[in-house]
Amino acid sequence: MGQTLFVPREVLEGEGRVAASPDTVKRLLGLGFEVIVEAGAGAGSRLADAEFEKAGARLGKAGDAGGADVILKVRRPTREELAGYRKGALVLAMMDPFGHEGEVAAMARAGVVGFAMELMPRITRAQSMDVLSSQANLAGYRAVIDAAAEYDRALPMMMTAAGTVPAAKVFVMGAGVAGLQAIATARRLGAVVTATDVRAAAGEQVASLGAKFVMTDALKDASGEGGYARELTEEEKRAQAELIAGHIAKQDIVITTALIPGRPAPRLVTAPMVASMRAGSVIVDLAVERGGNVEGAQAGSVVVTDNGVKIVGHVNVAGRVAASASLLYARNLFAFLETLVDKEKKQLAVDWEDELVKATLLTRDGAVVHPRLVEAAAAA
Amino acid sequence: MGQTLFVPREVLEGEGRVAASPDTVKRLLGLGFEVIVEAGAGAGSRLADAEFEKAGARLGKAGDAGGADVILKVRRPTREELAGYRKGALVLAMMDPFGHEGEVAAMARAGVVGFAMELMPRITRAQSMDVLSSQANLAGYRAVIDAAAEYDRALPMMMTAAGTVPAAKVFVMGAGVAGLQAIATARRLGAVVTATDVRAAAGEQVASLGAKFVMTDALKDASGEGGYARELTEEEKRAQAELIAGHIAKQDIVITTALIPGRPAPRLVTAPMVASMRAGSVIVDLAVERGGNVEGAQAGSVVVTDNGVKIVGHVNVAGRVAASASLLYARNLFAFLETLVDKEKKQLAVDWEDELVKATLLTRDGAVVHPRLVEAAAAA
Repeated sequence: MGQTLFVPREVLEGEGRVAASPDTVKRLLGLGFEVIVEAGAGAGSRLADAEFEKAGARLGKAGDAGGADVILKVRRPTREELAGYRKGALVLAMMDPFGHEGEVAAMARAGVVGFAMELMPRITRAQSMDVLSSQANLAGYRAVIDAAAEYDRALPMMMTAAGTVPAAKVFVMGAGVAGLQAIATARRLGAVVTATDVRAAAGEQVASLGAKFVMTDALKDASGEGGYARELTEEEKRAQAELIAGHIAKQDIVITTALIPGRPAPRLVTAPMVASMRAGSVIVDLAVERGGNVEGAQAGSVVVTDNGVKIVGHVNVAGRVAASASLLYARNLFAFLETLVDKEKKQLAVDWEDELVKATLLTRDGAVVHPRLVEAAAAA
Repeated sequence: MGQTLFVPREVLEGEGRVAASPDTVKRLLGLGFEVIVEAGAGAGSRLADAEFEKAGARLGKAGDAGGADVILKVRRPTREELAGYRKGALVLAMMDPFGHEGEVAAMARAGVVGFAMELMPRITRAQSMDVLSSQANLAGYRAVIDAAAEYDRALPMMMTAAGTVPAAKVFVMGAGVAGLQAIATARRLGAVVTATDVRAAAGEQVASLGAKFVMTDALKDASGEGGYARELTEEEKRAQAELIAGHIAKQDIVITTALIPGRPAPRLVTAPMVASMRAGSVIVDLAVERGGNVEGAQAGSVVVTDNGVKIVGHVNVAGRVAASASLLYARNLFAFLETLVDKEKKQLAVDWEDELVKATLLTRDGAVVHPRLVEAAAAA
């Protein structure tokens, strides 16, 4: 078909991930694409230009985006990038659209067909395309490594001739994909792990990983749609906060992972709770880019409070294990792109009525088309 | 008896450890000492002044050293510190005497009775006083955490809907206390672990931790005295280096832990070996303060080589988990000091013929008395 696919080097400072791997390049060639990878695109993920070439990609430069029918990215394209794209080009990325409506509008004006990978429905068919899961899984792992690196004691119990070092107490708040992996990793390192979640159903998963579930009986199951937690009522929040407050004061490490799609992160740990912790304790806030679960957390910083508690606010935590994150993200993109191609004719053939397309499509034919963004625009 | 024991705040930049804990303060009081802890001494180990006071210590200032019969320290006293000590005072610390003969002589001139805790014989009776083991154990743990923090992939294998992240390959060189704990920690984190040691006998311990032992058959058992490895012959070194060279090129993470007491660290990883590794690989050199096992390692730095390998050269790695390290170190000191006290009369009663005293005593009555230091002085 001669359709061209371009993979740029990400321009956002500190973004080490890339939207293709040598493995997915081979698969993309199999779909009939000519694949151009910008030189150096994989450098931050330990994927050398030579590996991409060996897989069959052509090395190119940023300007090659202008000739591409499909552009695979990690982050939403900047206005500068959009200016170089062809009208009608398909752009797949983590678009982070809510709260960035102006940027989405710019994408519409540029005439590109933008898909937000993080809006992929959480259904069986789309599991392999679920970028939130693949990245959250790694973020949960990395949160524990970051906590252990900041913590001034060992995590496992150590029985030595000079006495016993007690195991660290780790409390994970939010037992979604990131939380469950954080639980598993902390358990691997020998910590005593507890966890909580607003969904009572999460208790079973938490227990299966060897952690104790902390939840007040008064809390009703607050499961929301699509496998996400819904927001709690004020009363529920108070009941949970009381239980948590008592528990948190005894913890060595707290990892918070609570996100509500399209909304600011819920505040789980207040300043008085932080103040109740012992000096040297560590809190990792995985929601810091969404406003934070922890009062006093700062995106991009490790804050040390007056009472000696470290609040770790690294951004792009999955990107801190970029080499693993890119391999999985590239597979997610490929799995979705595969559904947008007619494999016999080897050409793009988007079914605009497909539920995956409808759920993720942000812009088309010069307009913002995603229902939630259209509603938001109408309400504004 | 009214004998006084003083625990100063360590003066070395970056040393967060302290030579007593609230637990050992209680025990020291039980031996009949009056215990004075310098204010802030425990700050780097998360031990508050109030905790020491609650345990029965009096809070003091640096000048209180002058009235003390016993001084417990982490590091060898500086000349400034020595100037404030009473003649005849017992000083217990990690003295790091070899290569610092001038500093030991200064200790003799100051008239203090200096004990080097790291020269404690590795015999059953002295196990609870073995500071090398207690600190090396934590260093081995921390080396893996530091490696994982620098590494751009996840250590455990992760099977996800988007594909499998392979487990990291970790190679531990030197299977002493630090090496064995590094093996155990890397295994906990799900890595595929191999290890080597010049002592063939270490193979069994390595295997019992679930790691594979890498050793050429040509290598004879090079066990040395006192549980330490002796130096290898040139031929042995070549045979080992060849085997290691082939193995190392395939590793993601290498952790080196080879130390020979009183000698520079053996060179295990050469520049060509480092050059053979893939970009993004991580090497942690626990011997960097002794000249390093790894060519190109720099004490206190993370060096990134031209081919993208990170060589991690943190110093005082046990001190990076200072809170745990101090608790164990304080217990080590107490266990030894207990043998220097007549428990009925509750006063110091050093048996100068005791093998533990003879092995660790550096200076007494104004002279350097340790046989190995006396020999070195005679030979010079």
